[in-house]
Amino acid sequence: MASTFTSTIPTTGQPGPTFRAADRGEVDRACRAAGEAFRAGVGRSARTDLLERTAEGLAALGDRLLEQASAETGLPASPRLAGERDRTVNQLRMFAGLVREGSWVEAILESSLPTRAPLPKPDLRRMLVPLGPVAVYGASNFPLAYSVAGGDTASALAAGCPVVVKGHPSHPGTGAMVAEVVRGAVSACGLPEGTFSYLPAGGDRDLAIARELVTHPSIKAAGFTGSPSGGMALARLGAERPDPIPVYAEMGSVNPVVALASAGEAGAVAEKLAASAVASGGQMCTCPGLVFAVRGAWFESLASAMAKAIGAVSPVVMLNPRVRGSFTEKLAANASAANVRLLAGETGQKPAEGPLVARPALMRVASASFRSNASLAEECFGPALMLVECDDVEDVLASLACIEGSLTGTLWCGGTDPDARRVMTSLVARCGRVVVNGVPTGVEVCAPMVHGGPFPACNRPESTAVGPLAIRRWCRPVCFQNTPEDLLPEELRSDNPLGIERLVDGQRRR
Amino acid sequence: MASTFTSTIPTTGQPGPTFRAADRGEVDRACRAAGEAFRAGVGRSARTDLLERTAEGLAALGDRLLEQASAETGLPASPRLAGERDRTVNQLRMFAGLVREGSWVEAILESSLPTRAPLPKPDLRRMLVPLGPVAVYGASNFPLAYSVAGGDTASALAAGCPVVVKGHPSHPGTGAMVAEVVRGAVSACGLPEGTFSYLPAGGDRDLAIARELVTHPSIKAAGFTGSPSGGMALARLGAERPDPIPVYAEMGSVNPVVALASAGEAGAVAEKLAASAVASGGQMCTCPGLVFAVRGAWFESLASAMAKAIGAVSPVVMLNPRVRGSFTEKLAANASAANVRLLAGETGQKPAEGPLVARPALMRVASASFRSNASLAEECFGPALMLVECDDVEDVLASLACIEGSLTGTLWCGGTDPDARRVMTSLVARCGRVVVNGVPTGVEVCAPMVHGGPFPACNRPESTAVGPLAIRRWCRPVCFQNTPEDLLPEELRSDNPLGIERLVDGQRRR
Repeated sequence: MASTFTSTIPTTGQPGPTFRAADRGEVDRACRAAGEAFRAGVGRSARTDLLERTAEGLAALGDRLLEQASAETGLPASPRLAGERDRTVNQLRMFAGLVREGSWVEAILESSLPTRAPLPKPDLRRMLVPLGPVAVYGASNFPLAYSVAGGDTASALAAGCPVVVKGHPSHPGTGAMVAEVVRGAVSACGLPEGTFSYLPAGGDRDLAIARELVTHPSIKAAGFTGSPSGGMALARLGAERPDPIPVYAEMGSVNPVVALASAGEAGAVAEKLAASAVASGGQMCTCPGLVFAVRGAWFESLASAMAKAIGAVSPVVMLNPRVRGSFTEKLAANASAANVRLLAGETGQKPAEGPLVARPALMRVASASFRSNASLAEECFGPALMLVECDDVEDVLASLACIEGSLTGTLWCGGTDPDARRVMTSLVARCGRVVVNGVPTGVEVCAPMVHGGPFPACNRPESTAVGPLAIRRWCRPVCFQNTPEDLLPEELRSDNPLGIERLVDGQRRR
Repeated sequence: MASTFTSTIPTTGQPGPTFRAADRGEVDRACRAAGEAFRAGVGRSARTDLLERTAEGLAALGDRLLEQASAETGLPASPRLAGERDRTVNQLRMFAGLVREGSWVEAILESSLPTRAPLPKPDLRRMLVPLGPVAVYGASNFPLAYSVAGGDTASALAAGCPVVVKGHPSHPGTGAMVAEVVRGAVSACGLPEGTFSYLPAGGDRDLAIARELVTHPSIKAAGFTGSPSGGMALARLGAERPDPIPVYAEMGSVNPVVALASAGEAGAVAEKLAASAVASGGQMCTCPGLVFAVRGAWFESLASAMAKAIGAVSPVVMLNPRVRGSFTEKLAANASAANVRLLAGETGQKPAEGPLVARPALMRVASASFRSNASLAEECFGPALMLVECDDVEDVLASLACIEGSLTGTLWCGGTDPDARRVMTSLVARCGRVVVNGVPTGVEVCAPMVHGGPFPACNRPESTAVGPLAIRRWCRPVCFQNTPEDLLPEELRSDNPLGIERLVDGQRRR
């Protein structure tokens, strides 16, 4: 009997339509087909075409896609989901452009030195090649940009890796709609069906599908965005295979903020941080969770302005019952910890039925209590922020040292603050991206972007999940030694038929 | 009571002098000191200085180092160890040059677009930063180039990571001599002692030190060269930490060769392959282990020429009792497998005492038997080669499909062989480096080099252990958003004070 599941409609708390989860045979067939598609190979122009047709198809879904995603996630169709859709479409086009341009293969050539003593130097040429089929695990909080045709899928397809997506159980309708677009693009490009597969997942098959995928012999890498427990479970399964595979897991993050009094008017800082903390219901992986500032009048102004700003926010709709459940539980635990004061919000029991709402919360704690309670330094995913009152900048630095790796770190300071440099050094040591006098939410899709960071923000701190360099996750280099021209890939031929940028005998050339 | 150990002198089989193994406290102190050194930071010019002084110090040891290493490994002082010493010295200088030049940080800058709609684009700048203290596990077969001051240590120090080396128990005297040079260089540069530590290891402390290092909270990455069992044990320990760390393990490799009859005179091919297979006693990670060729007269010529060439090689001295024991055991198992014929060498029991010698061996098997016995496709580390007789090129491809990932793959063929391309595709799919009409031994230290490959050649196929890009293993990217000039690292300042090559708004610039 087929396994079925329903998601919860966040704005009502009512169950949505029933979906069928992929069975074991479907998972196996999708992975095998991906393996076959990989062995057949996907050429450069077919990849470009596929990415562009997918982008076009997503854009063509128009409001229908936004309405579906909004119904399933509770996120507003506009501007939130419209912005996410545009980002997803642009990201697919960016990767199409990257493949068309071609230099992403990092071609490096060195000429032979046949008369070198004591041994001749061979001709050596190196480029990146795709790893093989990639499993993609979508995130609940970005139903488009980190899901079926999101950054992991786009970068893997761009690299030449077939993709098998495990759909997220909290937006199955959106997933199916996007998958249909990608499948249509695969077919329109004349590519093998196995180039892209979508596995609807949920109910009692949800975890099983996750496991079956990452342990399937045809799968050679995986991308995940979600909770630390989910990410680490997959990473361990990947590492324990007879042939270990890389699992790139982008996980939790407290996104610390250090606000120094030199930053200027506390009210302005408070407003920006409060807005960032509750953006998308506080359900973005880059939402700030902890704010460190030094005791005194400026701290008090910041605290009261933040309390006012956060207290004024209407209850937010949360993504699904599990996210809301974890949030209310963690918030209640934090708010009742020793010496923590609730400045805004509430921690009472939420009704089990009805809309999945939660009231944004602000807490306050002195650094000594913060530093003696490790659970306060853990992520509380949702609209909650904790202000940590420190004695001085030394104390700020000591408090930062209690925080694990984070996607982002933010510093608010004046232009000549003598303490700024030391705080920067501490943030750089534990974050993938450092923001000055701004907010960490809003991840620009561009080459310098780092969306990753030290564990547990990411289990592979050398990687980024956003931007063109995200493609590196799905590749490995191959070196060709003394290989005749007609056996070399086009990217490495001496006459450079693709006109790509290469490093040739130490010089950049096209 | 201190734990002590002795190594075996390979040419005599007698025990060498007694060494003291590091105790648990020393491991802990070395790792903590590395953590402190990392937090203090090692500037660019200090790193350059350290690498160059180490190179100079190694060179200055002259014959004393070569004689010590030769006594402990059985490898000839000249040209083998002299060549390895030169490579090690040049590698240190290459990394010094890389740090001085500076572009290795992969700086990428994109300007802000403050008036962009709907949202302004922030100023974003990205570069690589060091991960933290690195544990290095030296290899027995390269007492200089892959050991105390070898490629892992040089690349980690270049990245700005302090290093803690676990000495290899089979060349403790060589290890101590090199460590003394590095410590002297650290001290001459005025760097903290924790920048480099050497832990002599052996006897009942050998595995314990390996474990204590990779699980120490101060250690943030590890590099290993050696057996698959050792590498995977460390990789699993690294993955199972509360904060998983990357372990880069370069492990076993069968290094398949496909010899097509179009390659020309079989005798010449045979001589080159035989010499490569027994180079350094067949104890190089890139020695060819399997040769596939198509049945017929050419195959028979190749087989008899190889049998003659390998039969003519004097018994080789092996590195240590464990390496010889594994070799003779694996060789005996292979040679006695169904339908395997021994064409040269012997598989009898080796004397437990006396010199650690072994006679090079050549075996022959038909592809059907090869394909039905997975153990024949496993590495047999030492001077042994197996010829696989295939029905046709299809059968060659099917046989290659039975091989796991390998560091190298080699193709011998004529210029217009129509089968060459398909064989290349298969080799690229399972190897880190592909060699045409040459031998896989001899790893050039240069930018296009890939010394790595799909599992089990390496557990991190995206990496190389040799060449300047080996530095990437010890780094992670950090992105700076809207950061004022005076809070940016020099590498990312707008005026580019270091004059390094950067990608600025999509253009390469200095």
